[in-house]
Amino acid sequence: MSFFRPELDRMAGYMPGEQPQDGGWVKLNTNENPYPPSPRVVEALTAAAQGKLNLYPDPHGTAFRKAASAALHLDPDWILPGNGSDEILTILTRSFTGPSDQIAYPYPSYILYETLADLQGVRHERLLLEPDWSWNFDRIGKTIEQSKLIFVPNPNSPSGNRWPFDDLLALVPKRGMLVLDEAYGDFADHPHQCELLNSTAGRQIVVTRTFSKSYSLAGVRFGFAVAHPDTIAGLRKMKDSYNCDSLSLAAATAAIQDQDWMRQNTARIRATRERLTTELKSLGFDVVPSQTNFVWATHPTGQHKAQYEALRSKKILVRYMSFGNITWASDQRLDGLRITIGTDAEIDSLLIALREIV
Amino acid sequence: MSFFRPELDRMAGYMPGEQPQDGGWVKLNTNENPYPPSPRVVEALTAAAQGKLNLYPDPHGTAFRKAASAALHLDPDWILPGNGSDEILTILTRSFTGPSDQIAYPYPSYILYETLADLQGVRHERLLLEPDWSWNFDRIGKTIEQSKLIFVPNPNSPSGNRWPFDDLLALVPKRGMLVLDEAYGDFADHPHQCELLNSTAGRQIVVTRTFSKSYSLAGVRFGFAVAHPDTIAGLRKMKDSYNCDSLSLAAATAAIQDQDWMRQNTARIRATRERLTTELKSLGFDVVPSQTNFVWATHPTGQHKAQYEALRSKKILVRYMSFGNITWASDQRLDGLRITIGTDAEIDSLLIALREIV
Repeated sequence: MSFFRPELDRMAGYMPGEQPQDGGWVKLNTNENPYPPSPRVVEALTAAAQGKLNLYPDPHGTAFRKAASAALHLDPDWILPGNGSDEILTILTRSFTGPSDQIAYPYPSYILYETLADLQGVRHERLLLEPDWSWNFDRIGKTIEQSKLIFVPNPNSPSGNRWPFDDLLALVPKRGMLVLDEAYGDFADHPHQCELLNSTAGRQIVVTRTFSKSYSLAGVRFGFAVAHPDTIAGLRKMKDSYNCDSLSLAAATAAIQDQDWMRQNTARIRATRERLTTELKSLGFDVVPSQTNFVWATHPTGQHKAQYEALRSKKILVRYMSFGNITWASDQRLDGLRITIGTDAEIDSLLIALREIV
Repeated sequence: MSFFRPELDRMAGYMPGEQPQDGGWVKLNTNENPYPPSPRVVEALTAAAQGKLNLYPDPHGTAFRKAASAALHLDPDWILPGNGSDEILTILTRSFTGPSDQIAYPYPSYILYETLADLQGVRHERLLLEPDWSWNFDRIGKTIEQSKLIFVPNPNSPSGNRWPFDDLLALVPKRGMLVLDEAYGDFADHPHQCELLNSTAGRQIVVTRTFSKSYSLAGVRFGFAVAHPDTIAGLRKMKDSYNCDSLSLAAATAAIQDQDWMRQNTARIRATRERLTTELKSLGFDVVPSQTNFVWATHPTGQHKAQYEALRSKKILVRYMSFGNITWASDQRLDGLRITIGTDAEIDSLLIALREIV
């Protein structure tokens, strides 16, 4: 007999991308940054390891918030640190939605939002995107209006496209909050600067950021929310007092203080992205122009699963993704390959393998 | 206008013990271990800082679970790592209770359980302890029966006492789960070995452990749950995929492999605890015999708030605690000082100060 909440018993649980623990893989499946973090991060962590780990961390992450404040030109009160932006998304879900509320999110998109809604026991609706990844506001207007919380990754995954500000503002629910999940924002050609928080709808917007992608720190689990101080104060009540440890706070503080390092790596990734896009097209793939550290590639043969498996047999991991209930697609299904931008050498290995496979 | 859940807007938020960020304090207020973690932890962290932090951590914490399995003589499937036992308590609350359920916990005790229930929007009831910190099962039987989830710290805080196995088994709700929060278990004269998980009620019990106390790692945020594999599998669905980072996993793995270091420190703390208890009694305090790394001290004068403030003015921090709605107490209120066991030198400073104050 189980005493779990029935919703939880019914769920399969979220399945993250494969994380092989053995070596030798070309890992292009979970959008990690192929370059190491700033040397200042390693220095800060080495010092922190020698520090007073027997004491609790600063529950407010004061040093980090000051550093982020300087980097983002925002007051520290606008910033809430979290144990990865995953934790921030969980805190947002729990803070804004109860049993009678509804969550919405674009589709195809980051499928975690659906899991977060299920875990919270909240109704959820997909906002079906058009074949060109744009919004059909006529069709989704009512769902937007009825939602308490809308999650939108901008740029989107798996497509890598980014939506204009006007579209995002049209997604703010009348009586609720819009969360702009900017996990990949630093890879855009012209990264956001949280401009929408200053719009008339700014009080209904929360921006989330992560250190897992552009700052090369997926291993330390650190992200943060940016929002009006009243919103941050409410979210702070929901978080565990000591949600961020001394080590990740030290790492994130050092990382955000080295903007040059981050920008240099994102520039390299953008250059590799352009090259990969061109090469994939020459192999017959359709590739959505990407503003992220991955590309979404589909092939007229539709043999994406077989391509994924053939790559896997060569120890090259990409993400095979398949989305059902797509009314405009044949078989109502859209599938394809989401390929993380690795180093140039990794992308060379991928392209050599793909030339044999396709 | 706020779009937060109304329950959240009404809440004040949990207030953790003061964490001054400046130096020079004798800090005896949040039950940190005064001794540093094992040198193996520092080595492991220094190595991890040089490792592949750009990659996600192992979502299952395999290496840690293996090490814990060896130390605790349990199968790895019985173990769920978390971002501090705080996160484990949150995961338990969310996994077992929905809007129609009830949570219960002893009182006076760890007040966080009440906050967790409020954050989840769940009814909660206190199980009022007797003046000698024992249970009145006649009075609380019905509440136990009606609860879905019961949190019991064993040993208890702020009292430091420990309850016998039979009492704990009587706290298992008929249709729900008992959580034994063993944050302070390693400081007991004869620490638990998760024996109750093998009892007939074992499938309805979850034990939680932390590295913040006995392992001197409050700064790294690491704890874990121990329960039947079916329970662990359900809880795993609720957690964020990457709830533990590479650094804390490395630190916890090294720490649990150095049982000698932990036992040596807990033995020192137990010795200091006995000395402090004797000295406090000689100053006229009543002290509950403690099985933890703190003592609960009350003075016939009842001047606990003034004592706390006088100590604070000397840069000595202890925890002043005040519990209302205690039907058997005069003014329905119980207050006192919860004093963490520091180093012998720190306890000497405290005693010198107290001799002037009392």
